Amino acid sequence: MRIDERKFDELRNVSMETNFIMHPEGSVLITVGKTKVICNATIEDRVPPFLRGQGKGWITAEYSMLPRATVSRNQREASKGKITGRTMEIQRLIGRALRSVVDLEALGEKTIWIDCDVIQADGGTRTASITGAFVALALAIHSLHEKDAFTSFPITHYLAATSVGVVKDQGVLLDLNYEEDFSAAVDMNVVMTSSGEFVEIQGTGEEATFSRKELNALLDRAEKGINRLIDHQREALGEIATLIDKEVGVEA
Amino acid sequence: MRIDERKFDELRNVSMETNFIMHPEGSVLITVGKTKVICNATIEDRVPPFLRGQGKGWITAEYSMLPRATVSRNQREASKGKITGRTMEIQRLIGRALRSVVDLEALGEKTIWIDCDVIQADGGTRTASITGAFVALALAIHSLHEKDAFTSFPITHYLAATSVGVVKDQGVLLDLNYEEDFSAAVDMNVVMTSSGEFVEIQGTGEEATFSRKELNALLDRAEKGINRLIDHQREALGEIATLIDKEVGVEA
Amino acid sequence: MRIDERKFDELRNVSMETNFIMHPEGSVLITVGKTKVICNATIEDRVPPFLRGQGKGWITAEYSMLPRATVSRNQREASKGKITGRTMEIQRLIGRALRSVVDLEALGEKTIWIDCDVIQADGGTRTASITGAFVALALAIHSLHEKDAFTSFPITHYLAATSVGVVKDQGVLLDLNYEEDFSAAVDMNVVMTSSGEFVEIQGTGEEATFSRKELNALLDRAEKGINRLIDHQREALGEIATLIDKEVGVEA
Amino acid sequence: MRIDERKFDELRNVSMETNFIMHPEGSVLITVGKTKVICNATIEDRVPPFLRGQGKGWITAEYSMLPRATVSRNQREASKGKITGRTMEIQRLIGRALRSVVDLEALGEKTIWIDCDVIQADGGTRTASITGAFVALALAIHSLHEKDAFTSFPITHYLAATSVGVVKDQGVLLDLNYEEDFSAAVDMNVVMTSSGEFVEIQGTGEEATFSRKELNALLDRAEKGINRLIDHQREALGEIATLIDKEVGVEA
Amino acid sequence: MRIDERKFDELRNVSMETNFIMHPEGSVLITVGKTKVICNATIEDRVPPFLRGQGKGWITAEYSMLPRATVSRNQREASKGKITGRTMEIQRLIGRALRSVVDLEALGEKTIWIDCDVIQADGGTRTASITGAFVALALAIHSLHEKDAFTSFPITHYLAATSVGVVKDQGVLLDLNYEEDFSAAVDMNVVMTSSGEFVEIQGTGEEATFSRKELNALLDRAEKGINRLIDHQREALGEIATLIDKEVGVEA
Amino acid sequence: MRIDERKFDELRNVSMETNFIMHPEGSVLITVGKTKVICNATIEDRVPPFLRGQGKGWITAEYSMLPRATVSRNQREASKGKITGRTMEIQRLIGRALRSVVDLEALGEKTIWIDCDVIQADGGTRTASITGAFVALALAIHSLHEKDAFTSFPITHYLAATSVGVVKDQGVLLDLNYEEDFSAAVDMNVVMTSSGEFVEIQGTGEEATFSRKELNALLDRAEKGINRLIDHQREALGEIATLIDKEVGVEA
Repeated sequence: MRIDERKFDELRNVSMETNFIMHPEGSVLITVGKTKVICNATIEDRVPPFLRGQGKGWITAEYSMLPRATVSRNQREASKGKITGRTMEIQRLIGRALRSVVDLEALGEKTIWIDCDVIQADGGTRTASITGAFVALALAIHSLHEKDAFTSFPITHYLAATSVGVVKDQGVLLDLNYEEDFSAAVDMNVVMTSSGEFVEIQGTGEEATFSRKELNALLDRAEKGINRLIDHQREALGEIATLIDKEVGVEA
Repeated sequence: MRIDERKFDELRNVSMETNFIMHPEGSVLITVGKTKVICNATIEDRVPPFLRGQGKGWITAEYSMLPRATVSRNQREASKGKITGRTMEIQRLIGRALRSVVDLEALGEKTIWIDCDVIQADGGTRTASITGAFVALALAIHSLHEKDAFTSFPITHYLAATSVGVVKDQGVLLDLNYEEDFSAAVDMNVVMTSSGEFVEIQGTGEEATFSRKELNALLDRAEKGINRLIDHQREALGEIATLIDKEVGVEA
Repeated sequence: MRIDERKFDELRNVSMETNFIMHPEGSVLITVGKTKVICNATIEDRVPPFLRGQGKGWITAEYSMLPRATVSRNQREASKGKITGRTMEIQRLIGRALRSVVDLEALGEKTIWIDCDVIQADGGTRTASITGAFVALALAIHSLHEKDAFTSFPITHYLAATSVGVVKDQGVLLDLNYEEDFSAAVDMNVVMTSSGEFVEIQGTGEEATFSRKELNALLDRAEKGINRLIDHQREALGEIATLIDKEVGVEA
Repeated sequence: MRIDERKFDELRNVSMETNFIMHPEGSVLITVGKTKVICNATIEDRVPPFLRGQGKGWITAEYSMLPRATVSRNQREASKGKITGRTMEIQRLIGRALRSVVDLEALGEKTIWIDCDVIQADGGTRTASITGAFVALALAIHSLHEKDAFTSFPITHYLAATSVGVVKDQGVLLDLNYEEDFSAAVDMNVVMTSSGEFVEIQGTGEEATFSRKELNALLDRAEKGINRLIDHQREALGEIATLIDKEVGVEA
Repeated sequence: MRIDERKFDELRNVSMETNFIMHPEGSVLITVGKTKVICNATIEDRVPPFLRGQGKGWITAEYSMLPRATVSRNQREASKGKITGRTMEIQRLIGRALRSVVDLEALGEKTIWIDCDVIQADGGTRTASITGAFVALALAIHSLHEKDAFTSFPITHYLAATSVGVVKDQGVLLDLNYEEDFSAAVDMNVVMTSSGEFVEIQGTGEEATFSRKELNALLDRAEKGINRLIDHQREALGEIATLIDKEVGVEA
Repeated sequence: MRIDERKFDELRNVSMETNFIMHPEGSVLITVGKTKVICNATIEDRVPPFLRGQGKGWITAEYSMLPRATVSRNQREASKGKITGRTMEIQRLIGRALRSVVDLEALGEKTIWIDCDVIQADGGTRTASITGAFVALALAIHSLHEKDAFTSFPITHYLAATSVGVVKDQGVLLDLNYEEDFSAAVDMNVVMTSSGEFVEIQGTGEEATFSRKELNALLDRAEKGINRLIDHQREALGEIATLIDKEVGVEA
């Protein structure tokens, strides 16, 4: 059994509170176990310089943790005056993942900024960020849709992410909390769409290695978890989900 | 009447949710109208270099806003690589105010870090931060007290803050929301203790000036509001309030 | 008696040497006791982005100390690569105060840069900076006036600043030197105009508090000092003073 | 056929010139097609603060490109004053990968710094860096071994890396050059050991997704390429290879 | 005799490998003894803001060392987040020197970026950078010339540099290696043209002084060395040299 | 004749006001024509890390200009967050020059910080800084000497600096003001001691070159000027000069 009494292939409790913050075009508080992330989406009516004049949109993400989201306090990146490598990796990952399920041409010359701010951390903050950010993004795009900005809803798939890992004496686990993540020999983040395809796989042996067989077991478990997370997204989005499902088509 | 139908000397709705985040020694989510600030207090077992070896503690604060706490998105200070002058002013103010009501000698060689993170802003974020931070601080100090760290509870007064201002055609208003603050000719932040004394007064004419008479009207209104905020603090602190009241003595 | 044998409500010796540096449009060396600040005003023919196209001017200030203006050497902010919170607070205060007595619409789309460089410090550097900066500003505006830039002189009031404080066993003191400032329980900076109105009040209990009665005593003393500082400004400005007095009208 | 006339599962020409730079403890110039990386290894007799006193070593990597390693000139990170997210990701990856094949306890309290400087880039610079860095690391560790620092050679496996990708109309390609990488729908970096186990898999759909079947084809092709790269490493290391092979045991 | 058995007025072995890196418009690897510098020249079709609209070109240089170009490893300037004073001095010197032998009006509104990256250092890196950079610059300008960009070749002189110094017990030495440079009482860098004129002289007593007589001996020795370096440049440039010589005229 | 009616070999008016600022151990305001520099010397009782435990002292310099020391306002380096290459070159030069005339072993493990702050600039600020800094340094060392810190006065020579240049149609000029410096084809800074030896020569052709003959004429003129500057230093130092002269011996 796992330390929090979950089964090996069981997600932690998940909830998504939409419209959590009043100002953003899309906002959600995602809770995965004890991990809590505020995901806000902002629409800006221009694109970065490298895209200007191409009639195409952009999605970019920023990620941060409150200093005391963690067991011991971390120095604020604003105080340090620079962003850590870990933060950069995560925000690049979130942006890249979201861009893969949006029709950027249909979006037009707009940038959607995704801000993921972890207010409480217990493992899996980057995957919770992606899963929550998808919902915030859908809400923001829906706010444009209501103003007749699009001929068809420009989201091509649902998108969610989870972590899986190999922990000694326990094997392959789904949705690692901090303690499990800390002791894992192999740690893998998987981002998948509702069509069952991968968007991103990042698997790392932590001073360890892993075999093809282990890889397959990890991916099987991740897929199950992601399907359940997409169910949560559908529920949180309510009527907007119907709209996406129509677009996504056969997957629904 | 005011735009949100309050009376001139009426506070917005106030609530304080203690233990909002699980890891910090003290944590509160303070809500003042639509302004929401997470205040976390962290205890560190050492003091800054300039205080080492003096047997005295220190309290320091950091303040930040989520990029989309505001109507339009602000660039993250971590991305800019530096902290704005406004942020510096606010965090210096919070730390200074809290230090004035704690017996730093009794605290011993410890630093208490106060993190005020504004997740939603509608005016008065610095005064809400001070009012909430006092509660987070009291919780953190209580966690030390439970380990028998002190002979008597080292908080000497309650402390709260509010804003007051002069708005054209309306006169002197208590607890300005963003729209009122934006149109105020004079803007004043007042920090007071439960003994009715000032800790800090910062009054500014915004391309305007103010008379001694106006100053007195502003301070009268501020004092009323602060007394009501201290009532909210007492309620939020529950049994810990009894402990402080015993210390504060005649004020209770 | 005070350590430098002044009376409680006595300013230190004040002098203002105009045209101290040859290049700026306005330049003054202000001396208040042993505190010496070079105040230079520069006129730039454009405004910051947020004001463009509004036909309105802007005044902004920068403040710095020579590393050895103080008893022990401070590291240069340029070497540290960032500006301290104290410096930011002071330069924001100087700019804000000066903007309150200039008709920015009449100024037109120009920025006036105020540089206050403390070459020797003995307390009260920020208030000396404001008092000197007003003179440098008046000189710079006069240089525009001579080129027929304005229909009427766009300064609406004189403006000066001083510090007051509560020092143990001495009570309320005017114009604190470094030693007095260091031992003060309450420290207050007051910026006032020649019309007797406040522009800025910043009162701080240094690990202490202050009552309404003390506040009133502090403000009374500050007002006296500021009136005398304005006399010094008038004298330093010579014929330009006549020009301002005509504008200021009844106050003269 | 591919644009450079290679077969789909064919590596580019590979060479490794050892002792390329005279000062480092280990140095190699690795050439993979037109990509050229100088990999230098430096031994330092201490470890980072978080490891002190644990009797364990550390390996850390830095990665950089000459400004004109690429078709158009990139601004130097030293001139920008900060490191890009891409650079941070790559240097974290290189360090993590190398640490997985070294017995850090046997290394003792030493840090090995790996510097990978790309002097000419044509795709695959991060995987060439890892493959070359392994050789530089082995040379540096051998220099310690010759001073009898270890009872057994502390490298547990060979380690090499390559890229694979899915390119439209061509399918799954091994060892992408810049042009192929640019047009790839899926891009994957694989780091493996001589035991046939994975150390790191990073697969990314570039505004695209990929199926489990494609994943398997990519991994098959990567494994073939990595085995051939390890043959090149053995050859470059000469007698030192014999030493490693003895340690690696059954794999040899 | 000198530690490497050279005569007092003897250069180290010099070689220049042109087209060393494939992408730049001009590229050379210069080797002076054990010092090796990659010099790349990039043409950009615009000039810095201060030159815009004047029809004149610009040449600017950047200089860097690989961390392990030296005996012990130096921290990367990109990691430090700032460039050292030494680097700034050197890159300003290289740019200034090259600009003195190019007809910037004839060049037109173009910037030529010179990147000098020291991959192995044994003294004299700044003078080797200048000597190599001249060749890279000539190659880049020739690439423009081939497109009929100029009516006459816009290089007015050859340009090369060397170091000379006074070493105790040895006297005046030409082309100091690291060990000689380290022990020199006087250190001088001389940049000269093929017309025998100086472009730059930088002579420094290292906690020492030098007489006019010593200065003259240093300059005599430098001139001899520079003439030989220019012979190497001619050889490396091959047919392009003929083109320059035609321009330079009587000097050829 | 020169624009300010000086002869070709004539210095501008020079004055040195000692003890200009009250706090530093040594302070002087040097005026050379319209150039004015405050030079302050601070004694610190420790040395930089690279010198610790060697029983030897260190002298280091920082240089800055007030933003409006110049005709048009320059952005403050503290606001930019970094120091320009020009500033770095100058402060390295000042420190190096001063170290050449102080017996650092006799100084003991102390650092003397030299701060040169240009309050008004009209050419020659770096050479005026060196000349003034020598006097501030002598005052600071004398303050140690009065506490019996040394067996003999640890200054080995006087040290001063001036600029010379070649200006079209005028030839070789001594002590260039800003206008002359701006139009000079060759610009040279010379630092010499009272023994007539060079400490530093920095000669630069500004998009021009210079012959050996011109070099000699420049050095002759510089030497004359420097001797006169040393006379001014002697006068400013008064009795301390006698003390130095005793040490310097035959030069007196």
